[in-house]
Amino acid sequence: MNDVLRRDAEAILRRAIDAAAPGRAVAQALSGRVFPGRVFLAAVGKAAWPMADAAARTLGGALTRGVVVTKYGHREGEIPRVACYEGGHPLPDARGLAGTRAILDMTRSLQPEDTVLFLLSGGGSALFEQPLIPLDELSALTGQLLAAGCGITEINTVRKRLSAVKGGKFARWCAPARVETIALSDVLGDPPDMIASGPTVPDPSTCAQALDVVRRFHIALSPAARRCLMEETPKALPDTVFRVVGNVSTLCGAAAEGCRALGYAPLLLTDRLCCEAREAGSFLAAILRSHAADGRDLAFLAGGETVVHLSGHGLGGRNQEMALAAAPHLAGLSNAALLCAGSDGTDGPTDAAGGYADGGTWDALQEKGVSWAAAMEEHDAYHALQAVGGLVITGPTGTNVNDLALGLIH
Amino acid sequence: MNDVLRRDAEAILRRAIDAAAPGRAVAQALSGRVFPGRVFLAAVGKAAWPMADAAARTLGGALTRGVVVTKYGHREGEIPRVACYEGGHPLPDARGLAGTRAILDMTRSLQPEDTVLFLLSGGGSALFEQPLIPLDELSALTGQLLAAGCGITEINTVRKRLSAVKGGKFARWCAPARVETIALSDVLGDPPDMIASGPTVPDPSTCAQALDVVRRFHIALSPAARRCLMEETPKALPDTVFRVVGNVSTLCGAAAEGCRALGYAPLLLTDRLCCEAREAGSFLAAILRSHAADGRDLAFLAGGETVVHLSGHGLGGRNQEMALAAAPHLAGLSNAALLCAGSDGTDGPTDAAGGYADGGTWDALQEKGVSWAAAMEEHDAYHALQAVGGLVITGPTGTNVNDLALGLIH
Repeated sequence: MNDVLRRDAEAILRRAIDAAAPGRAVAQALSGRVFPGRVFLAAVGKAAWPMADAAARTLGGALTRGVVVTKYGHREGEIPRVACYEGGHPLPDARGLAGTRAILDMTRSLQPEDTVLFLLSGGGSALFEQPLIPLDELSALTGQLLAAGCGITEINTVRKRLSAVKGGKFARWCAPARVETIALSDVLGDPPDMIASGPTVPDPSTCAQALDVVRRFHIALSPAARRCLMEETPKALPDTVFRVVGNVSTLCGAAAEGCRALGYAPLLLTDRLCCEAREAGSFLAAILRSHAADGRDLAFLAGGETVVHLSGHGLGGRNQEMALAAAPHLAGLSNAALLCAGSDGTDGPTDAAGGYADGGTWDALQEKGVSWAAAMEEHDAYHALQAVGGLVITGPTGTNVNDLALGLIH
Repeated sequence: MNDVLRRDAEAILRRAIDAAAPGRAVAQALSGRVFPGRVFLAAVGKAAWPMADAAARTLGGALTRGVVVTKYGHREGEIPRVACYEGGHPLPDARGLAGTRAILDMTRSLQPEDTVLFLLSGGGSALFEQPLIPLDELSALTGQLLAAGCGITEINTVRKRLSAVKGGKFARWCAPARVETIALSDVLGDPPDMIASGPTVPDPSTCAQALDVVRRFHIALSPAARRCLMEETPKALPDTVFRVVGNVSTLCGAAAEGCRALGYAPLLLTDRLCCEAREAGSFLAAILRSHAADGRDLAFLAGGETVVHLSGHGLGGRNQEMALAAAPHLAGLSNAALLCAGSDGTDGPTDAAGGYADGGTWDALQEKGVSWAAAMEEHDAYHALQAVGGLVITGPTGTNVNDLALGLIH
């Protein structure tokens, strides 16, 4: 392993994650603000706790009270005047539903001069939910939609109508109070209605589209569910503001700064990467190989979220798989490396944030008797990278703005 | 469709292909050269005819005689003192074997002061062959190796030993004459022993490796074939020179010049692209989308050869599939386009060289009632692109240096 490249890559990743930490962004967004009436804080998602903590510190006495609903293990302590709930993710559970009810109770019967600060982050779709049908039925229906091959947009079009809070309905509930959403985006391109299914923004989808999905994919519905699908979502929401204060572009921009600070000339390839993880790894390795002899310290950055089509019984994640896929294409290069990591510090069902490969990884795998082909076939990148010291482990980072792939030439 | 982008992309492609035309490169390589003895010309591969024609014109009276073996339909006329054969590709046939025999006859009993000019291009592996076992048996064995999941290196390790000309054996046959190889490379990275299985270069593979492939993949061998596998290939070949006069880097370099001439700032991403075609298309489209608002005319270039894992019953090729894959990711962009084409003018079993997609392609597909998802699923890029005017048709170009992907932002 090339120790310099490894050290630099990890330092750049750390800097990028720090810059995408939600606390600072929330504090900046609220600093110096004056609100006409009471201020209620509702924070949902995987980054809800640090976002709420920063808001509470910034608002001080201006905060009336608040509720946090975050994922199990993501609550970091007490926040004055703020109740903290932890709930299930990616599948909603009773605790998450209880947290959501607490938010709905808090925001009942508000006044026009009141403000609801809605702090939104990835995972909010599962953590902020009050279903209009029994949770079991909702889970079974989601299973049907997935099994039928529906895409995420189609699934959301149906599910928004089965929820009391999604698709703009939470903002409607809060009326006549003003609703200000501050979002950390984990969806490429930041479409507001797709981040946690858009509880506070007008819903562009229609009942006709929802019914069409049900018809085309032969989804079985209870009479109650069918009635929900025929009720239209809000198409306009006065007195709402939505803004994104952190996303994968933030992550990439900070990574580029980190590169410059260490003497690498950065090139941001894209902040929209969404292809198959292993193919992205191959493509990035091809870029590195072609530029390895340029005679300059270069960095190629790609932000986004790749996909893995699972088969086999291995352990890994999209970032680990991307790094491992690059290994044969980097083999023998003394000055090139690829680090891929999730900004939340989690990659797949593992304790790693991602993976690292350089020109020595291929030989190291051979020496350890690890079959690269078998590891790729079985999607077992975790154990392959573990054998050669190629796991990137950060622990939970408190943010959630997709992934960073960082190719370095030194 | 964006007419300006389409016109510019096609002009840049044309310029790149012209620059990679083999005739000029061969003429340059031979211009002003003086040879001590007789000069025999052996040209094999898909570009053999234009390479031989240029050599004959440049050498004039210095050429003793020559033989061309090229693919059916690739002979463009008579060349003085040069016999032209056409043979089967990608599967060798009796006509190709006859051409090979003509080359072997011509180069029998040469003198030390004689020179064999070996003009090599892609397709040479099938077109230049004298098998040491019956052709039927060789074909069946190749089928076994492919079905067993052998990679190209493993297949070549075995096949070099079943041939009288591959793996350096043609150069050994020509001794004590000097052998000078001028190659147009269609293999990424230009490994000499991989271009047409290296008839004139030392073979790095060993009998032990060949026997190991047979054992590991459970390949059934006749006693004759097994005897061949135990005979070692040449490991050193004095009096041989090998040089590459054209490859995908030539193509990319000329494309970059073409971009500059039209006002686009070019960035060569890689000349080693080798991932799955559709994923490369998605990645390139993500790059274009991220840079579409940069406010500059930009060109992103990627050379190489992607792969398609065939399923379905559609018509297409890797370049058409790459372009079609980009369509949804480019949708709505007014100023971005992707053109992908094979430098030989052929993409898959079609009359197209490749495909073109821009920000309007997605809507055009909808208007024509073409299902993008179905076309991708069935690998039917040809018909989908045909419906929206997205086929790139150049006709045979006379060169063969892999593929060019060209992303433009205007």
